[in-house]
Amino acid sequence: MLLHLSTWVEIEAYLKRSRTVVIPIGSNEQHGPTGLLGTDWLCPEIIAHEAQKGGDLLVAPTFNIGMAQHHLGFPGTIALRPSTFMAAIGDWCKSLAAAGFEKLYFLNGHGGNVATIEAAFSELYAEASYAGVKRGFACKLKNWWDLEGVTALANRQFPSGHGSHATPSEIAVTQWAYPDQIKTANYAPQIAPTGPIREAMDFRARFPDGRMGSDPALATPEKGGELVRAAAAGLIRDVAAFAAEAPVI
Amino acid sequence: MLLHLSTWVEIEAYLKRSRTVVIPIGSNEQHGPTGLLGTDWLCPEIIAHEAQKGGDLLVAPTFNIGMAQHHLGFPGTIALRPSTFMAAIGDWCKSLAAAGFEKLYFLNGHGGNVATIEAAFSELYAEASYAGVKRGFACKLKNWWDLEGVTALANRQFPSGHGSHATPSEIAVTQWAYPDQIKTANYAPQIAPTGPIREAMDFRARFPDGRMGSDPALATPEKGGELVRAAAAGLIRDVAAFAAEAPVI
Amino acid sequence: MLLHLSTWVEIEAYLKRSRTVVIPIGSNEQHGPTGLLGTDWLCPEIIAHEAQKGGDLLVAPTFNIGMAQHHLGFPGTIALRPSTFMAAIGDWCKSLAAAGFEKLYFLNGHGGNVATIEAAFSELYAEASYAGVKRGFACKLKNWWDLEGVTALANRQFPSGHGSHATPSEIAVTQWAYPDQIKTANYAPQIAPTGPIREAMDFRARFPDGRMGSDPALATPEKGGELVRAAAAGLIRDVAAFAAEAPVI
Amino acid sequence: MLLHLSTWVEIEAYLKRSRTVVIPIGSNEQHGPTGLLGTDWLCPEIIAHEAQKGGDLLVAPTFNIGMAQHHLGFPGTIALRPSTFMAAIGDWCKSLAAAGFEKLYFLNGHGGNVATIEAAFSELYAEASYAGVKRGFACKLKNWWDLEGVTALANRQFPSGHGSHATPSEIAVTQWAYPDQIKTANYAPQIAPTGPIREAMDFRARFPDGRMGSDPALATPEKGGELVRAAAAGLIRDVAAFAAEAPVI
Amino acid sequence: MLLHLSTWVEIEAYLKRSRTVVIPIGSNEQHGPTGLLGTDWLCPEIIAHEAQKGGDLLVAPTFNIGMAQHHLGFPGTIALRPSTFMAAIGDWCKSLAAAGFEKLYFLNGHGGNVATIEAAFSELYAEASYAGVKRGFACKLKNWWDLEGVTALANRQFPSGHGSHATPSEIAVTQWAYPDQIKTANYAPQIAPTGPIREAMDFRARFPDGRMGSDPALATPEKGGELVRAAAAGLIRDVAAFAAEAPVI
Amino acid sequence: MLLHLSTWVEIEAYLKRSRTVVIPIGSNEQHGPTGLLGTDWLCPEIIAHEAQKGGDLLVAPTFNIGMAQHHLGFPGTIALRPSTFMAAIGDWCKSLAAAGFEKLYFLNGHGGNVATIEAAFSELYAEASYAGVKRGFACKLKNWWDLEGVTALANRQFPSGHGSHATPSEIAVTQWAYPDQIKTANYAPQIAPTGPIREAMDFRARFPDGRMGSDPALATPEKGGELVRAAAAGLIRDVAAFAAEAPVI
Repeated sequence: MLLHLSTWVEIEAYLKRSRTVVIPIGSNEQHGPTGLLGTDWLCPEIIAHEAQKGGDLLVAPTFNIGMAQHHLGFPGTIALRPSTFMAAIGDWCKSLAAAGFEKLYFLNGHGGNVATIEAAFSELYAEASYAGVKRGFACKLKNWWDLEGVTALANRQFPSGHGSHATPSEIAVTQWAYPDQIKTANYAPQIAPTGPIREAMDFRARFPDGRMGSDPALATPEKGGELVRAAAAGLIRDVAAFAAEAPVI
Repeated sequence: MLLHLSTWVEIEAYLKRSRTVVIPIGSNEQHGPTGLLGTDWLCPEIIAHEAQKGGDLLVAPTFNIGMAQHHLGFPGTIALRPSTFMAAIGDWCKSLAAAGFEKLYFLNGHGGNVATIEAAFSELYAEASYAGVKRGFACKLKNWWDLEGVTALANRQFPSGHGSHATPSEIAVTQWAYPDQIKTANYAPQIAPTGPIREAMDFRARFPDGRMGSDPALATPEKGGELVRAAAAGLIRDVAAFAAEAPVI
Repeated sequence: MLLHLSTWVEIEAYLKRSRTVVIPIGSNEQHGPTGLLGTDWLCPEIIAHEAQKGGDLLVAPTFNIGMAQHHLGFPGTIALRPSTFMAAIGDWCKSLAAAGFEKLYFLNGHGGNVATIEAAFSELYAEASYAGVKRGFACKLKNWWDLEGVTALANRQFPSGHGSHATPSEIAVTQWAYPDQIKTANYAPQIAPTGPIREAMDFRARFPDGRMGSDPALATPEKGGELVRAAAAGLIRDVAAFAAEAPVI
Repeated sequence: MLLHLSTWVEIEAYLKRSRTVVIPIGSNEQHGPTGLLGTDWLCPEIIAHEAQKGGDLLVAPTFNIGMAQHHLGFPGTIALRPSTFMAAIGDWCKSLAAAGFEKLYFLNGHGGNVATIEAAFSELYAEASYAGVKRGFACKLKNWWDLEGVTALANRQFPSGHGSHATPSEIAVTQWAYPDQIKTANYAPQIAPTGPIREAMDFRARFPDGRMGSDPALATPEKGGELVRAAAAGLIRDVAAFAAEAPVI
Repeated sequence: MLLHLSTWVEIEAYLKRSRTVVIPIGSNEQHGPTGLLGTDWLCPEIIAHEAQKGGDLLVAPTFNIGMAQHHLGFPGTIALRPSTFMAAIGDWCKSLAAAGFEKLYFLNGHGGNVATIEAAFSELYAEASYAGVKRGFACKLKNWWDLEGVTALANRQFPSGHGSHATPSEIAVTQWAYPDQIKTANYAPQIAPTGPIREAMDFRARFPDGRMGSDPALATPEKGGELVRAAAAGLIRDVAAFAAEAPVI
Repeated sequence: MLLHLSTWVEIEAYLKRSRTVVIPIGSNEQHGPTGLLGTDWLCPEIIAHEAQKGGDLLVAPTFNIGMAQHHLGFPGTIALRPSTFMAAIGDWCKSLAAAGFEKLYFLNGHGGNVATIEAAFSELYAEASYAGVKRGFACKLKNWWDLEGVTALANRQFPSGHGSHATPSEIAVTQWAYPDQIKTANYAPQIAPTGPIREAMDFRARFPDGRMGSDPALATPEKGGELVRAAAAGLIRDVAAFAAEAPVI
């Protein structure tokens, strides 16, 4: 069930049977010479939309811009500063909580988002701690590749050249969903270098075509489809467990 | 050309021929008993995506959450406070400007966004005024119904019962794009009441099913298609005029 | 009744008969070669002070600095960034609400303020929506030229050359109130150019003497007096209607 | 020379002979049963306006709302939170600095403002320290009662019962300027109690009629006139000394 | 009793007998060629730690970075902007208040902190005024040199050459506590110049070795010991009086 | 070399041979019935101070309050909201960068700090990306238990009952440094429960005495000494490697 294609009347009915909502969250940022700029928000959106076809899952609109400052040296990247990102996550959560949602599950597609999303949850909890909070309200962050079975599958699919940015697994997921948007290039080197993540100009100097440790040529739409199915199944189970958590009093 | 389905290499090439980008911006908020919660961000997205099929237009990801505090009394609404909204618009603009974009065109789908978007532009300009700004950089806001010919068409289509929220014109646009998501209800009264917009609880008291002055039953996918085609044509012309503006020195 | 020339004991007594207060709000910014820098806050102050002589109206001190970033290229302009302006409006409103005021009527003298004031109201309402708000609390913005009868009068007085900044109508109002501060200049061209409002340096390049579309030479103190009397009468009626609004529950 | 009754052309000319501007700053807050709510912004405004009649002094519009949170228990008080107050002072200063002013002299009428104004200067300097600042730019805060000769005069006028809030000296100044707004009351006790300043409800409990240590019945318009003349003379001298300060390099 | 060397169980027990806590607060900033960078936070820490040996005093961890922007021209200085400083003080206070503390006593070691700390208290009170505050909650700021008897002693110890920054009294206190960190230099001039405090680069130009009006060569560990003992005794008395204050209702 | 016991002249000399500084950072928060409230800031301080005895390492004052909102249910905890924490880290970094430091190494003692510190670095980099940044400037975060060899040692020392909060390893470190502050209690259960970290009241309900998965009775000062020596040696090596990193251009 997609929230943005529902009416408020339908959501009011849904809230009578569940207090849980899934929010795909990612980033719009360079993904090497062949990865789509939307990769990191498309992946969780693709997986969550697939999962809701197979279960009574409510999926919110996708939070499509995240913490991507280190990619700003490449055009097409759009980034929120961490302070803005935190404020926006807080507003999303407060809006949903005002409507009665108590379990907010963020399915994340960008490693660079993790620190700020966790900080945003703490900011929200801190405010709630001073104001008095409804017991049982909880936010949870899960990267799609950390869903049960997904990384193991990716390791089997890509025993080498997976890397950490513009990876063949995330590119495969978008290839499966957007088969007419598959791009190719000659990679030099075939497997990109690795290194620390610092400021944007430093990043472009270290990683001239934007990839980190990856060989995107390994991606295929078929492998993407396998990943999506594994992730969607894992998501349904993980959300169910989260929804079933009872508050500790 | 959709930015999120492009690579950074393709955007770098685009920037050699144009410095203009279109950003669909809207809101996720209740639209009466039959309007989709995503209506206000789906409409500019639908129109901009349609327009880019017919011209060399670059369309950014959709900014899908806006200033909807007055709708928070209805579940499914997600709102940014104006201060957060301004910060986020500023970060989008600075990211795009850092890449070399100079003309940022926001195609808006929500009247309640207008004040905050205009304030965000002024905040951005104020910062630029103190820091020294590149001459020619400009942001522009346009509501899709203000594109040439659109309101005239809507007036012909809906001589009465158009109203100002959950209007048959915006609902028609989403019906055309999502024909399997057409919802129906018995409206009582057939044409909703009108009144001032204040705080969220006041809003729900004044407008019990969420509509303002409208009769959504008048919407049809066919009328939606006419509106989309008119708006897309108007958008292409208006963006071209904006892109052609020379800086005043 | 002027709040700043009253004691707290007098305000406490006033609150027993009314919960409404009028706040003149404007901007201190260039108004062409002959307009006073204070024009935009002087006009609503002049009108509100005149109106309170003829009715039981409480007028707060004037909020004299607003959103004038686009005029910063001309000396004497003082501007608040939109974010600061919103915070300050919020603090004024919360102070007045803490004392028991429930209807805050802002009489505005500067078009450039509108977006930010409306955003500030939404920010205030958003905070109230989360915290639980007193039903019936409301903020209202009215430009003095939108008071009943005023624009019609100005159109009769100035059938051409009115323009949109440094207009003969606002200059006439200050001439009536400050007859010893009437300034003259040779205008070239007699009627100033028009165009879009962007950043401050762009503004000064487009509008070299600061006027937009206006011929201030048309202003006279007599016309100013007519405008003040019409606006003061309109204000008394409009505030009375606002004060009489019952909360919707 | 009053900035708000001048044109930008006149200010541009003034900047050729001086880089100094005086900003009256105060607070709108309760001043006991007989003191005007505007007392703390009226006093510096009265003194600065008087002084500019006798010298080539440029006086900005009055900053009329300040840090008065401890008076919020009394109606008519309007207060900025310190964080808002700092942001607004910063924006005033940056606007004036952008026009070429280098010496900003704040003539203050409210003791409760001092800490926040000083903090605002430090915030502004801190920003300048990181960004690189024009040498010689300086902000200065002066309470009107600290101008040369003023406190000595007040001590002679009011050997007892002066106190620290709603003092006979400040009330006398407003009586001189607004002789038709002189209010009377029976004070009990004749001299108000003293004590620490904490939060607003605590303040009203400690100081039930709003006065601190003062007997306002001692005020007369004549004493007010003496104070204004002494302060205006002191202001002209103090501003001249500040304007003459050479930057240290 | 040092809070950071206690357990939460011990603090819970302490709260049954007292609601008061002492927070040493200072700054890490240049103190001339021989003063320790930590001087301003070490002094209140030394005094508070000494005092708690002789009484049932709870001392929080030291707040060691303050408002030192004007010293940023000298390496080793670390400064918070006033806005950050206020936010951090607010968070300390809210954390302690959440645990049940009602009297927060800040023992300050840096004159440059005073304005911002007072502003922070007002910000906290302002928030409390709107939200409803527990009567009796209070924050108090005391500079260690303002404790009873301390300045009189310093005047006897240093009849000339005390000055206002890098003073022999504060340096003596650190010499007593850190006798192996006594530094020497040839001072030229022996007594440093005086002048106004402005921005950081201006400060370094006016005060080339960082001292203001002082001759640090006068400091000795013995004099420091005398100062610590006097201040510790004064602190015990002053905290007891603060703790004994009854709320006014 | 301890920065706070140095003079600015000594730091200026140090900057000629190194651009690197170590900042111990932690949190003041409950650590179970026997752990010191200061544990998380004492541990990195103890280790960094030990390390600087054996190498030319500059250690800044300890940043002693961090992101501990989930511990606010236990008295003695002091927490910064993430937004405040980020602002303060930013100000520390900008102060140090202004003095010429280019490699800022944060030695962290609190897992709950990690997300916010990383977000703060990104915020700082984001600002630098827009403003133009000195190439080579970098911030690094390292938890003391992640220093080479430390976790392996702790695993050998505490094969079971280590847990994740109020762990025997961190308590052992403080026992070694503060042997007269060793506290004892009967733990029930001997090994504390585990579970997710949410809001403060939820935390206290899940973990009634504050421990998570740990048995603090296993701690001894001797084991603490071993940990400190291993960590200090690891720190010297890790800082040297960081200092030796050349900028990528």
